[in-house]
Parts: sequence; C-alpha cells; structure tokens
Amino acid sequence: MSIRILVTGGTFDKEYDMINGKLDFEETHVPEMLKLGRCTVSTEIRTLMMVDSLEMTNTDRELILHNCKTVPEDKILLTHGTDTMSVTAEYLAKANLPKTIVITGAMIPYKFGSSDGFFNLGAALAFLQTLPHGVYVAMNGRYFTWDNVRKNKQTGLFEEL
Amino acid sequence: MSIRILVTGGTFDKEYDMINGKLDFEETHVPEMLKLGRCTVSTEIRTLMMVDSLEMTNTDRELILHNCKTVPEDKILLTHGTDTMSVTAEYLAKANLPKTIVITGAMIPYKFGSSDGFFNLGAALAFLQTLPHGVYVAMNGRYFTWDNVRKNKQTGLFEEL
Amino acid sequence: MSIRILVTGGTFDKEYDMINGKLDFEETHVPEMLKLGRCTVSTEIRTLMMVDSLEMTNTDRELILHNCKTVPEDKILLTHGTDTMSVTAEYLAKANLPKTIVITGAMIPYKFGSSDGFFNLGAALAFLQTLPHGVYVAMNGRYFTWDNVRKNKQTGLFEEL
Amino acid sequence: MSIRILVTGGTFDKEYDMINGKLDFEETHVPEMLKLGRCTVSTEIRTLMMVDSLEMTNTDRELILHNCKTVPEDKILLTHGTDTMSVTAEYLAKANLPKTIVITGAMIPYKFGSSDGFFNLGAALAFLQTLPHGVYVAMNGRYFTWDNVRKNKQTGLFEEL
Repeated sequence: MSIRILVTGGTFDKEYDMINGKLDFEETHVPEMLKLGRCTVSTEIRTLMMVDSLEMTNTDRELILHNCKTVPEDKILLTHGTDTMSVTAEYLAKANLPKTIVITGAMIPYKFGSSDGFFNLGAALAFLQTLPHGVYVAMNGRYFTWDNVRKNKQTGLFEEL
Repeated sequence: MSIRILVTGGTFDKEYDMINGKLDFEETHVPEMLKLGRCTVSTEIRTLMMVDSLEMTNTDRELILHNCKTVPEDKILLTHGTDTMSVTAEYLAKANLPKTIVITGAMIPYKFGSSDGFFNLGAALAFLQTLPHGVYVAMNGRYFTWDNVRKNKQTGLFEEL
Repeated sequence: MSIRILVTGGTFDKEYDMINGKLDFEETHVPEMLKLGRCTVSTEIRTLMMVDSLEMTNTDRELILHNCKTVPEDKILLTHGTDTMSVTAEYLAKANLPKTIVITGAMIPYKFGSSDGFFNLGAALAFLQTLPHGVYVAMNGRYFTWDNVRKNKQTGLFEEL
Repeated sequence: MSIRILVTGGTFDKEYDMINGKLDFEETHVPEMLKLGRCTVSTEIRTLMMVDSLEMTNTDRELILHNCKTVPEDKILLTHGTDTMSVTAEYLAKANLPKTIVITGAMIPYKFGSSDGFFNLGAALAFLQTLPHGVYVAMNGRYFTWDNVRKNKQTGLFEEL
C-alpha cells in the first residue's frame, strides 16, 4: 500500500523571505514533516506547483487531475491552499476516479511555529487509509465529502454546507 | 459525535524539570495540541494518570478499562507510553466493548521540539472517526489491530507481528 | 539598575494573520522573550508603535527621541525594523543624550521559528550593561556605533561603513 | 577580533534519546545557534567534553584551563553546566590569564523548545566583546564576576553572593 502525495503549495508550505520581507515558497516541507512524524507508510511525493490557491486556475486543476489519473497509487494526498480547496475538490470529484483523494492544508505555515499543518498531515494520511474511494477535504481534525464543505472566511474553519 | 480522550502520560506528555534536571509530568498538553491543530471535533478530556508505561500495572489498566466502559462516548482516544501499548491494547480488547478505541503516544515528548506527538494525535483522531469498533494502536502514521502490533525496541518504530 | 525597553515593531514582532494571509502586528513579544530568557535584569517596557521601519517618519522618530529623553532610565533598548535602524540611530545620536541607547531587531519574526530575535535581544541587553553613553546598533552578535553602520540589502547583514 | 568557544556540555547541549527514554549528549548545537542568530563575529569552536557539570572533576577543569591558556584568542566563551559554573569560574580566575572568559549555559536544553540557551549565548558573546580581562558568569541576561556569583538551587537563577 503506497500513498501518492501531490504538493501544490498553499499556506501549508509558505515561508518568510527575510531579504524582501514577504512570504514566498521554497521547497516543500512534506518530506521533513513525514520524517518528524516517524511515518512508516510508504509515500511518493511530487511537487506539481507552489501557489496560493486564490491564484490557482483550471489549467492548474487540470494538471492536478491529470496526475491523480495517471499515478499508479489509488490513495492520493493533495496539499493545497485553504481558500479554494472545495473548488478543486469538486473539479476532481467530477472525474469520478476509482481512487481516494484527500485534500489538506494549513491556516498557519508549517515553518511559522504554532502551525496546524503537522496535525492536519497526520489526520489526512490516516483518513486516506480508511476512507472509501471519493474526494474529501481533511481540515480541523475532520473529513468532509467534496460536496459538503466550505471554508468559513471569518473563522478560517471548515464546515459542512 | 464526540470523542473521549483518556490521558495516561507516557513520553507524549513528558517535560523537563529544570530544577532537578530530570524528566517529569505536569498537566497534559492535549488541550493545547487540539487548539493548535484547530480541531473542531467535539472532545472530552480526562487525565487518568501520568505514568511511564513501563510502570503501568494491571490495576492501572483496570482503571483505564473501567473508564472505557463507563464513558458515554463510543470513540475513545487513549494517550499512552509506547513501551506497553500492545499490553494495554490486549487488556482492553479482551473486554470486547462495542467501542472504537485508538491508542497513541510519542517517541519524543511534545514539549521537546521535533516531536512526533502532534502528528500522531491528528492521525489517531482521524482513525477514530473511520475505524469500526475494536482496539487499535496508531503510531508512525498507521494503525494496527490490537493483536497484530509490537514496538521494535531497536528502532522505536511500530510494526506488525 | 534598570533598563527601559521601547518597542517600535519591525520584523522582530511581526506575526502571521491567518484570516487574510498577511503579516501584521499584535502585542509585542518582548515580555515573553524576557521570561523565556529567564532575564532577571530589571526592565520596563513601553510600546511606542508597531510599524515596519520603512514606514517610519521623522514624526515617529521624534516620539522615540522624546521617550528616550524623558524616561528616567539611562539605559534604553529600542526594538526597531532593520531597514532604517541607522536612520533612527543618527536621529537619536544628534540629541547627544547622556544615555546608552542600543537599537536591535530581527531579520526573521520571533514568532516564525528560526528567528534571530531572541539571540539579538540577549546580545542587546548585554551591550546595554557595558557600553558607555552613546547610540548603537546591535545585530548579528555585534555592536556598531551609530555613525559606522549600514544594513547590507543583499545579505541582510549589518556591517561597518 | 575572534572569539574562541570551548564547549563542555551541560544542560545547554542535552538531548532526548528516544530509544532509552533518557537525556544524553550528541554533537554540540552551538554552530547551528550561531547560524540561527546570524552571528558575524568570527568564532572558533572546540568541544572539550560533553558532561553534566555535577560530574566535572578538577582533571576536567585543568583541561579547560589548559585550553584557555593555549588558544590564541584572548576572548573565550565557555559553555558549561549551571551546577558548578562558579567552581570552574574560580578555578580559571586563579590562573590570572590576560584574557576575558565568559561562562554561560542554560537551565533548559536548547533542543527542548522554551530554552534560555539561545538568549544566553547572545548575551555571553556580547559581554565578551565589551568586558575587560577577567572571568565572568553570564546568565539571566546579566554578568557576574567569578567571585560574586552563585546559583540559587531553589529558583535556578543566578545571583550575587
């Protein structure tokens, strides 16, 4: 049993660029997080892009879908910005793949201390191993089906519709 | 849906006592971890004891079992030292409760940076929401049934028998 | 012997606002840093403003100078954004106060893990206790006199002119 | 101007050994701390030993003194366990070397989050650059002369005699 991890960026992987004082992306931190979590589940990581999900286009989503279709694994973890998780979830669900796809991310960058990212990664990997085929969002310690989730913009928490 | 969290200590909650230079226990860190993980799953926490699991006796296990039986929730997360997780798992499994019990812990104390505890907590809470009734150990990003798990003392990793 | 700490913001105290995904300021972290450092030096903290020093105006600097003049202490630690530390240093030096003023800050926000802030605070407090009256910048483990310092914009390191 | 850093261990450099659940020593963390602090002061690090200072003998202290005498630098930072800092300070002071020696350490291991080590290192390096020849202990944001310091065993704080 192996899990494919597809990285697209989002707050999860944001970093602080000290020279220009802005937030940006470098390499994904998923490998070091799996190491810290002492994860023995077999995983294969591929970074597709490193973007804020507000800037994600359907061309980006088509790339994500293409990868979901073509990777050999039937369990896929997708790291993603929280702002358009439900949009991507719906896009992928329409393809009706015989796979379990769990989308997760973070409200606070992993690198910034006090991040929810590490906890979310553990939860998402667990859900991937037990949920039946379908597309899900895993945030706040819970999972939501693709058609019953939204991000509450005031609280930054995910909830059912 | 509510989850009961029963705390028994273990490396998960160990701290450094700066005055005597030794490791000890204070209050459990589970509440702050759930807050950091922005967990919206309804949980009820009860600290049963704060012990190194090598020092756990069957009297302690009987107390754990008693709580598992009597709490209203049918989903129970048990934090526990890694050394005798499988012993407690077997003890609880024999009672055949109509509940899902997931045991987790950490190899490095949560308070000591570089801990696997936060990741394990996320995974364990997720497994609790999807696994059928039974007793499980959740470590290293995976879950094991109570009758098919042991801690490898050389590597500190959990594996099937 | 007491030290006055005047807080003006800068990267030192920046935080991540998870709702809008931007960096901003909340309360200063100097009190918690002094506590973590187990600092027994007597200090009095006053937050004058919380700004990025690129946005600091001479009206702001006049407020800083006014406080430097009027506080009873003759040892003053000023936390400040790194971009215009030398500008403020010169502004204060011109007043020729019979006081020791040490300006410090950070290239990475204290709250973002991997910060130089905590180290810089320790160094700055130490320099304050040993340097004669004058105005200094303390960064990178060193001190510079107000008239012999600049921030290298490429490396983010401070150096003599 | 270059600073010699002599490492002897102490709580400063303690780590958690997850396999046997005990505290132990690995490599010193001083290099990574200097990097994190973005320290541009020229330093040369030598690890003399990695011991709890309660176990330090006069043979160990003779080795420390020998190094203090023979290194080319006249500014020496000594990392040391807090329990017998004043004993080593006196031992070194008796040699009356034409050097500035500052001893520092930590009450909480650097690796254990919430450590005072990083702050103490910044302070000690700063004191080294401004104090006249002599032997000092730098803890709690302050410096003490070798003949006027003791560790308060109840509070873990350093104070004058």
